[in-house]
Amino acid sequence: MKTVVVAPHPDDEVLGTGGTLLRRKAEDETIAWLIVTGITGEMGWSEEKINQRAHEIKRVTELFGFDSVFELNFPTTQLDQVPMSDLVAAISNVFKKFEPEEVFVPHPADVHTDHRMVFDAVASCTKWFRYLSVKRVLAYETLSETDFGLGTSQGFRPNVFVNIEPYLDDKIRAMDIYASEIGEFPFPRSHEAIQALAILRGAASGFKTAEAFELLRERL
Amino acid sequence: MKTVVVAPHPDDEVLGTGGTLLRRKAEDETIAWLIVTGITGEMGWSEEKINQRAHEIKRVTELFGFDSVFELNFPTTQLDQVPMSDLVAAISNVFKKFEPEEVFVPHPADVHTDHRMVFDAVASCTKWFRYLSVKRVLAYETLSETDFGLGTSQGFRPNVFVNIEPYLDDKIRAMDIYASEIGEFPFPRSHEAIQALAILRGAASGFKTAEAFELLRERL
Amino acid sequence: MKTVVVAPHPDDEVLGTGGTLLRRKAEDETIAWLIVTGITGEMGWSEEKINQRAHEIKRVTELFGFDSVFELNFPTTQLDQVPMSDLVAAISNVFKKFEPEEVFVPHPADVHTDHRMVFDAVASCTKWFRYLSVKRVLAYETLSETDFGLGTSQGFRPNVFVNIEPYLDDKIRAMDIYASEIGEFPFPRSHEAIQALAILRGAASGFKTAEAFELLRERL
Amino acid sequence: MKTVVVAPHPDDEVLGTGGTLLRRKAEDETIAWLIVTGITGEMGWSEEKINQRAHEIKRVTELFGFDSVFELNFPTTQLDQVPMSDLVAAISNVFKKFEPEEVFVPHPADVHTDHRMVFDAVASCTKWFRYLSVKRVLAYETLSETDFGLGTSQGFRPNVFVNIEPYLDDKIRAMDIYASEIGEFPFPRSHEAIQALAILRGAASGFKTAEAFELLRERL
Amino acid sequence: MKTVVVAPHPDDEVLGTGGTLLRRKAEDETIAWLIVTGITGEMGWSEEKINQRAHEIKRVTELFGFDSVFELNFPTTQLDQVPMSDLVAAISNVFKKFEPEEVFVPHPADVHTDHRMVFDAVASCTKWFRYLSVKRVLAYETLSETDFGLGTSQGFRPNVFVNIEPYLDDKIRAMDIYASEIGEFPFPRSHEAIQALAILRGAASGFKTAEAFELLRERL
Amino acid sequence: MKTVVVAPHPDDEVLGTGGTLLRRKAEDETIAWLIVTGITGEMGWSEEKINQRAHEIKRVTELFGFDSVFELNFPTTQLDQVPMSDLVAAISNVFKKFEPEEVFVPHPADVHTDHRMVFDAVASCTKWFRYLSVKRVLAYETLSETDFGLGTSQGFRPNVFVNIEPYLDDKIRAMDIYASEIGEFPFPRSHEAIQALAILRGAASGFKTAEAFELLRERL
Repeated sequence: MKTVVVAPHPDDEVLGTGGTLLRRKAEDETIAWLIVTGITGEMGWSEEKINQRAHEIKRVTELFGFDSVFELNFPTTQLDQVPMSDLVAAISNVFKKFEPEEVFVPHPADVHTDHRMVFDAVASCTKWFRYLSVKRVLAYETLSETDFGLGTSQGFRPNVFVNIEPYLDDKIRAMDIYASEIGEFPFPRSHEAIQALAILRGAASGFKTAEAFELLRERL
Repeated sequence: MKTVVVAPHPDDEVLGTGGTLLRRKAEDETIAWLIVTGITGEMGWSEEKINQRAHEIKRVTELFGFDSVFELNFPTTQLDQVPMSDLVAAISNVFKKFEPEEVFVPHPADVHTDHRMVFDAVASCTKWFRYLSVKRVLAYETLSETDFGLGTSQGFRPNVFVNIEPYLDDKIRAMDIYASEIGEFPFPRSHEAIQALAILRGAASGFKTAEAFELLRERL
Repeated sequence: MKTVVVAPHPDDEVLGTGGTLLRRKAEDETIAWLIVTGITGEMGWSEEKINQRAHEIKRVTELFGFDSVFELNFPTTQLDQVPMSDLVAAISNVFKKFEPEEVFVPHPADVHTDHRMVFDAVASCTKWFRYLSVKRVLAYETLSETDFGLGTSQGFRPNVFVNIEPYLDDKIRAMDIYASEIGEFPFPRSHEAIQALAILRGAASGFKTAEAFELLRERL
Repeated sequence: MKTVVVAPHPDDEVLGTGGTLLRRKAEDETIAWLIVTGITGEMGWSEEKINQRAHEIKRVTELFGFDSVFELNFPTTQLDQVPMSDLVAAISNVFKKFEPEEVFVPHPADVHTDHRMVFDAVASCTKWFRYLSVKRVLAYETLSETDFGLGTSQGFRPNVFVNIEPYLDDKIRAMDIYASEIGEFPFPRSHEAIQALAILRGAASGFKTAEAFELLRERL
Repeated sequence: MKTVVVAPHPDDEVLGTGGTLLRRKAEDETIAWLIVTGITGEMGWSEEKINQRAHEIKRVTELFGFDSVFELNFPTTQLDQVPMSDLVAAISNVFKKFEPEEVFVPHPADVHTDHRMVFDAVASCTKWFRYLSVKRVLAYETLSETDFGLGTSQGFRPNVFVNIEPYLDDKIRAMDIYASEIGEFPFPRSHEAIQALAILRGAASGFKTAEAFELLRERL
Repeated sequence: MKTVVVAPHPDDEVLGTGGTLLRRKAEDETIAWLIVTGITGEMGWSEEKINQRAHEIKRVTELFGFDSVFELNFPTTQLDQVPMSDLVAAISNVFKKFEPEEVFVPHPADVHTDHRMVFDAVASCTKWFRYLSVKRVLAYETLSETDFGLGTSQGFRPNVFVNIEPYLDDKIRAMDIYASEIGEFPFPRSHEAIQALAILRGAASGFKTAEAFELLRERL
């Protein structure tokens, strides 16, 4: 099986699907990472920060053993300024090339606009008659985004639970690579919160630790 | 894989999961039929009707090749008069004995009270710490029930589509066994409506004909 | 009664409301077609394609007998790049001029961004104190859009069913005019899928074929 | 058109549909009142109270000019103790006899269990293949019930607004007949609250006063 | 402030509101425990089990310092067999006597029928014109019930987070009193799961540990 | 307590929170007004209109006794053209400076795009780890916007009711300052509709007049 995780920003892939990706890889599946946004000098980022980000992506790629990494480099926190048709075209290109069977997307109730834009764009790339490879689409939950949605439409309701017991340590190790994104608990992107979420999803599904998803579409 | 379909009344299993069950069987899986209600003389049914129903169940069992059939014989159209704890206990017994991995249940928005009672009872039999065998729970749609729900809570939203192309003819043949339940189109339990639903679900998923389900819980 | 169908792209009016429009016309009502997007040379479309589109619109207009056709010519697949206030102003102009009593709009859960933008813009043109003519607003379903929404908010829940039995053939004939939009089943914009949807909506409402809508607002 | 309002208890018909019924009658339609519950001596009600109730029903019948009144006399506040099949059978009998085209029911999110039981039972009596006369089903709102629902599923979302300007005074007069049910504002069953609701629904729809409904199903 | 927690079964009050109750008490508020179900010899429970339950209730009462404990002793797991009017009357009596300002109820999407019956009954006891004391109603989440709901209506969506940092240890100590209800992780009623839930709710609200609730109604 | 109302346009603060703000002020709380949009000459507004608007803001400020007024001056009716990151940054600045504990926002189901943009932007400014001062976030209802939403996701469901009896007259007086925004009933921004809404919310909560809100998040 070929799996792709669509991450608005680097670190979403770890928070939402880290354990599952490590398990897929351990099971000899092909995994890919589609990073939608990037940071550049024109956007005002320092070279140091840009280099650091590139270094983080490299290390995370190695840790997970990603078979492919796609960087779209749209401007971070400004996806609402990108034409939806450009976003769709770029994601479509990746899907045509990688031909994923399993797709992980952020949840549409996440508080971050970038997450919602990515959700909408990916949704347009899952019609079977254009993307026949896609068999399963699942939304993941992102600590510090999914749990901060204020909206009044339906929030994250997990219906798929994946046992990640052997992989939680490496998931946290992967998160540690993003040193500037992680913080002291009760900050939600922290060791304690990541662990607590894994334990809670495990208690709901009979595993020591688990990741939870909302299945959006599957064709069998 | 061991699959059980929980049918409030005989014929729900055909309408909701007929094609999928035939496919499971063709793929050498073990399939079971749990019929929740029955008809008896004390309820005022004629012996002829009772015998006919038994005959229908026998023929459907043969056609699908059910490995197990469980008849709970609760009074039809009167499940709201059965203590929920009795209903749960009876279904629980079957689950303990058959140890299903995949469970198909009616949708909670169906208009028929029996369907909603069965949904509630099965939901109580899917906690992993009591029914460790259960890996997947899916709600099916029943022509003449799911499409007639008037409620204002969320209706059937399919997220799993199963290719039943080689099996639609046999599904309709199975439905024909229930001669008194099937009618002339536009009656919803008719050849034309069954076919149209299969075609429409197929168009949504890239198959000539399909059955659609709402995944409620899966543990992997 | 004066009816307008708001179509993000030509063919949405056929898929969503073709039978109902033909029936309205047969009943001597006044019907209008508001096409929100268009294709132009500046957007990179060939003259041949542009001419063909114009020809299709002409033929569909004749087939339905539209009393008015309004073409707003906003850029197709790029409505998210159009200021909402421009979109509202353009639709508002049409509503002021045509003074519709019945308005058909795409469903807000459709997967296509253009559809959702159109829904939002039309919603702003239905306040009674600005558009007193509007008596009824209904959302229609569009094969290949409404059935592909992945969102987690509520999907299409039809509550109005219109008998289109005498009109289905002409609806399909109208769809055939859009030769490049229609395909081989199981493609959703196909004869088979259109027919299956009409049959299924009919089975739900007691007609041989029907179109279904979600009533959003009516004042009587 | 033949219209029936299904009232769990006498006074629900006034609160939810009083103005609309008066308008239907003024427009020469046939209107019926189906009262689901009743009070009897066996339930412990005094003869005086029973007589008073009968008198109230008589006066309300006269004021509205009901063409038919059906009293099912199920025990008030105890509908959850009535077999659903009995409730359905009794309502079914009335529908078979009166053959309503338009049906008004309480909203399923009302806080009173009786209201929810009545909703479920009526829902079973609206399938077109058993009750071909039924063309429209609408849920009404009941002051002191609909506005006190605590549930987390979707509440009352009106989509049909009916101008009752000429009828509000008589609606309030009808409510006054139920002297023991009406109270001093801010009690919700009071002149002021009834008037405020009518004004608010009017402001939403362009009428001086209106009643609002949630259309659940219509076949045209 | 006077606070009451309505617990279908003993231990729900600890799981859902343990930390908050301890905090209320520490802040010198008056707290009450309304236990809806009980176990008796007639229901087939052994004297030993009955005594043990009484002992547990005594110890929990002492640990929390409940000012009042109300035991309704309806049959456990069989609330659906109790007339709703009896349930409402019994809870109503307690509310009239204790006059709570703050009420905690189980969530209506919990998988256990008893929880849903209790929710419905309490909802009937929160109308201001009958229970003027009630100022706030909140739904709590119960590990092993709220997280196992399979329904398709909206699940638990917390909007109130209460800091329970100084009280988590005592909450777990209280849970330990119910020796037969607690188990080895990943069982959901375990030290680890209770702690993980508290940490996760804390991460969402800026506290080391927290309890989360869904506010249903408040009057200020 | 420090309270801020975020108003897309001047007058939203009166319609949604007028009574509550007056009560806060009477209770000696600190209140602020954040006006998101403005009108300028470049946008084509006449100097007379601009001056009038400034005068209105001045008078409303005096009437409420606002301790702070923040005018962001984004272009009215065109917030969808403003980068979300600019909108967030501007609101963030105000929140950093004023440090509100209580935040009132428009409802996400309002029909006006500006309202929805403001909701999304404020939602990004309520994460506790960036805006520790924020303790409570509530959505208000705006006559002529909240009641005209056509969407199919969940509408306004009030769960907090605030007694504004002593303040309704001043609320209406404040609204009168916006002479061009108020109209003759049944126009929704009219004395009658404002009064009716206050009465209806009062009837639901036991006050002569009330304002209703939907609590979105609270940390205690």
